[in-house]
Amino acid sequence: MREKINQIIFGHDTKSSKLFDVILLWIILFSVLIVILESIPSLNKQFASLFFYAEWAITILFTIEYILRIWSSKTPLRYIFSFWGLVDLLSILPSYLELINFGFHYLLAIRIFRLLRVFRILKLVRFNREAQKLLLALNASKYKMGVFLMAVIAIMVILGTLMYVIEGGENGFTSIPQSIYWAIVTVTTVGFGDIVPQTVLGKFLSSIAMIMGYAIIAVPTGIITVELASKKSEDKVCNHDNPDDAQYCNQCGLKF
Amino acid sequence: MREKINQIIFGHDTKSSKLFDVILLWIILFSVLIVILESIPSLNKQFASLFFYAEWAITILFTIEYILRIWSSKTPLRYIFSFWGLVDLLSILPSYLELINFGFHYLLAIRIFRLLRVFRILKLVRFNREAQKLLLALNASKYKMGVFLMAVIAIMVILGTLMYVIEGGENGFTSIPQSIYWAIVTVTTVGFGDIVPQTVLGKFLSSIAMIMGYAIIAVPTGIITVELASKKSEDKVCNHDNPDDAQYCNQCGLKF
Amino acid sequence: MREKINQIIFGHDTKSSKLFDVILLWIILFSVLIVILESIPSLNKQFASLFFYAEWAITILFTIEYILRIWSSKTPLRYIFSFWGLVDLLSILPSYLELINFGFHYLLAIRIFRLLRVFRILKLVRFNREAQKLLLALNASKYKMGVFLMAVIAIMVILGTLMYVIEGGENGFTSIPQSIYWAIVTVTTVGFGDIVPQTVLGKFLSSIAMIMGYAIIAVPTGIITVELASKKSEDKVCNHDNPDDAQYCNQCGLKF
Amino acid sequence: MREKINQIIFGHDTKSSKLFDVILLWIILFSVLIVILESIPSLNKQFASLFFYAEWAITILFTIEYILRIWSSKTPLRYIFSFWGLVDLLSILPSYLELINFGFHYLLAIRIFRLLRVFRILKLVRFNREAQKLLLALNASKYKMGVFLMAVIAIMVILGTLMYVIEGGENGFTSIPQSIYWAIVTVTTVGFGDIVPQTVLGKFLSSIAMIMGYAIIAVPTGIITVELASKKSEDKVCNHDNPDDAQYCNQCGLKF
Repeated sequence: MREKINQIIFGHDTKSSKLFDVILLWIILFSVLIVILESIPSLNKQFASLFFYAEWAITILFTIEYILRIWSSKTPLRYIFSFWGLVDLLSILPSYLELINFGFHYLLAIRIFRLLRVFRILKLVRFNREAQKLLLALNASKYKMGVFLMAVIAIMVILGTLMYVIEGGENGFTSIPQSIYWAIVTVTTVGFGDIVPQTVLGKFLSSIAMIMGYAIIAVPTGIITVELASKKSEDKVCNHDNPDDAQYCNQCGLKF
Repeated sequence: MREKINQIIFGHDTKSSKLFDVILLWIILFSVLIVILESIPSLNKQFASLFFYAEWAITILFTIEYILRIWSSKTPLRYIFSFWGLVDLLSILPSYLELINFGFHYLLAIRIFRLLRVFRILKLVRFNREAQKLLLALNASKYKMGVFLMAVIAIMVILGTLMYVIEGGENGFTSIPQSIYWAIVTVTTVGFGDIVPQTVLGKFLSSIAMIMGYAIIAVPTGIITVELASKKSEDKVCNHDNPDDAQYCNQCGLKF
Repeated sequence: MREKINQIIFGHDTKSSKLFDVILLWIILFSVLIVILESIPSLNKQFASLFFYAEWAITILFTIEYILRIWSSKTPLRYIFSFWGLVDLLSILPSYLELINFGFHYLLAIRIFRLLRVFRILKLVRFNREAQKLLLALNASKYKMGVFLMAVIAIMVILGTLMYVIEGGENGFTSIPQSIYWAIVTVTTVGFGDIVPQTVLGKFLSSIAMIMGYAIIAVPTGIITVELASKKSEDKVCNHDNPDDAQYCNQCGLKF
Repeated sequence: MREKINQIIFGHDTKSSKLFDVILLWIILFSVLIVILESIPSLNKQFASLFFYAEWAITILFTIEYILRIWSSKTPLRYIFSFWGLVDLLSILPSYLELINFGFHYLLAIRIFRLLRVFRILKLVRFNREAQKLLLALNASKYKMGVFLMAVIAIMVILGTLMYVIEGGENGFTSIPQSIYWAIVTVTTVGFGDIVPQTVLGKFLSSIAMIMGYAIIAVPTGIITVELASKKSEDKVCNHDNPDDAQYCNQCGLKF
């Protein structure tokens, strides 16, 4: 029986495990919705008890599932300390902790990490393959991206410090970390506008930073595009008969 | 005669159907302009009756067209419930509904969907072919884009919740949906600045989110570029000798 | 002599025409600087007469140049009504017009179009070739870009109208043109923050629009990248000897 | 001994020089952290003396290192006036200058340029190779980027001047430089929102500028992507038979 429950909970192939996945998926999405709606003051006041019962019903269901996962697992300890095991624990812990210490209400927002559990369940064949490809491309570009990020962060630190010197505290650039925050907001083209340069020199330096940021954004895009393109061309394999001197398969267009 | 009207209204090839299309195109653009101008308070006060008459003239013309379309169609019901049929209905309905219930004035803005009708008429050969190619590329990338959007939405939900916990209601992060809205505004680099982080931790987390959003924007660009490039390479022509059953040229990889 | 002046003014190859170009380039940049600096209230007050004399010196120089261009041109009328002829006229006209009508001071800012004259002179070989390539790529993508822009504008008009209905005048969405302006600010990820949605539904719709705008930006990038890449590969031509069955030149790597 | 110190300080291969690099790396990062933290008013008040002693300890260490570098260098003058030599001097000078002139406190922020020294030390094999490739791609695209930047700056100058004429000083467009600053903020899609158009014409022109900026951002991305892709294709290896003097494989186009 333990074997069978293991198959239902951890598997994705049998009919019953698929049904289990679908039900779990909806419960997770429903529980995330509860966490989100509960945070709205007006709804929280009106439906406080409803949220309370819904939350505990979900917590108990997830607790049962968590215990079944430990019990049915062949290597319980490995499961508990695995990434998904910790996410599962994080999904139920806040509710229990709140029983003891009612004060720290914000703790409950931690339950939003339940959303991550969706990704374990979501094993739709097509989506999974594409996700795999995207992750491979991201992985292949990690060194280039690392170099890029290091350069960008250095630029932001230096730009922030210069702006702190130029603008000073009276214009909102109260400290270097604050100015670096402004530099990040600006170079990434977010531009909140809560802190803006006031001096002529500050505006001039910002202008250069913005045009630079505008050109710099091209670099990660180029990196990812090239990796995705090379993943795309590596995708194909063929076993067709072709003349010896063929450079491309005449059945599937693969380049030899 | 029904056959002929059908050809004029639904066709795009004969001289009379082309004339019909051009006239309809200008009426649609004129009607959209009326809707837009009517919404400007100062103009609305001054030219109220002008707008009224222009609107009803257009509505009656569109109604006649709608009736002719139903009458001349071989499968009237299928036309009525088709996408374009519903758009056609939506173009005239608001004006009639306003006759009954004068209060809900905003209903009239629905008429803006008349703009969509332009796309049915716009069958310029060159534009159409390019639109086709763009749609094909977008279609080919739909799974990758789906994966990307799911990941981005999950990041935004979690980021929003964390910011809600860190910043709290007094800094504008009054609820999780509000905070998720902020996360979307930030990660997409829009950055309205109506809600901004105030705490040091909040600013630090935002900084990471912004740099991440900056790098993440590379992914959809990469996806679309690769698909467009592969569509482009399918565009070529070749004159090489190939076996009769070849599906791809074995000299240049062109797909037949 | 007319022939010679023509060569100096319109040519770019002889020593004297090159000298003429370099001097003209610096005068243009200097005159643009004058226009810019003149607009700063504090400087304008202090150095009013200096700006006045500098401006008239430049105007007279440009007028002499303009007359020489007409006089030395083989087809004076064609020059006057050519693009560059009009730009040349626009460079001197505002100063003379101000003599008559002193009131419309802002007219003087039109002189900024002198900046365009820089691009006629700037015939640096390397830069020109690259500019040519960029323009070719932009030209090759004009139909795709047209389709894209038409779709984006339609989205912005509809989004703006919906936001006008949802938010209404009290939240800053005072008319449909105003709301369309907001939609453009938002979908292009500029995000000034002067108008922001206040209602829950408005924020929800904005969120969708922002995520869409985030993905949509990938399309023009993809279009341009593909065109640039195909221009790059078309760039090479070779006349090297190669084996008959070679697919790539073994001297320059050109693909046959 | 001078030879040995030279090897330790300037080299990156022996065990002791690697240890030296690692220690120096951490001291640099620590000293940058000190500069950043010192700028926070509350921390500066509380730990003033701590920062003072830490700063002087670092300055003395860097001074010793600087003297050793000069002493052990075979060409001391060339080192002093090299890029890295100047960065090294800039890292210690502000602290000594402050001894003399205590007033100009902001001078100390110059010490942030110490951060640049990290990049001399960071010779991790993999990262370095990727950085090299990125720089090569950026270098190969420098003419295209130059053309692009010149066009963008011209657009921004003209747009800014037009907006100055249209909006005028009362709407925040107080001078042409200020309006150009606004144009840069807008076209790069940063959008602070400190200055926004108020007139209908101003909003219309801004809308066009934003849509243009949205399309323009595609150009640098395309340029960089194409260069990165061509760098990537140079990465391949081939085993085909080729004539001895071939510079490119005639089967796969690989450059030897």
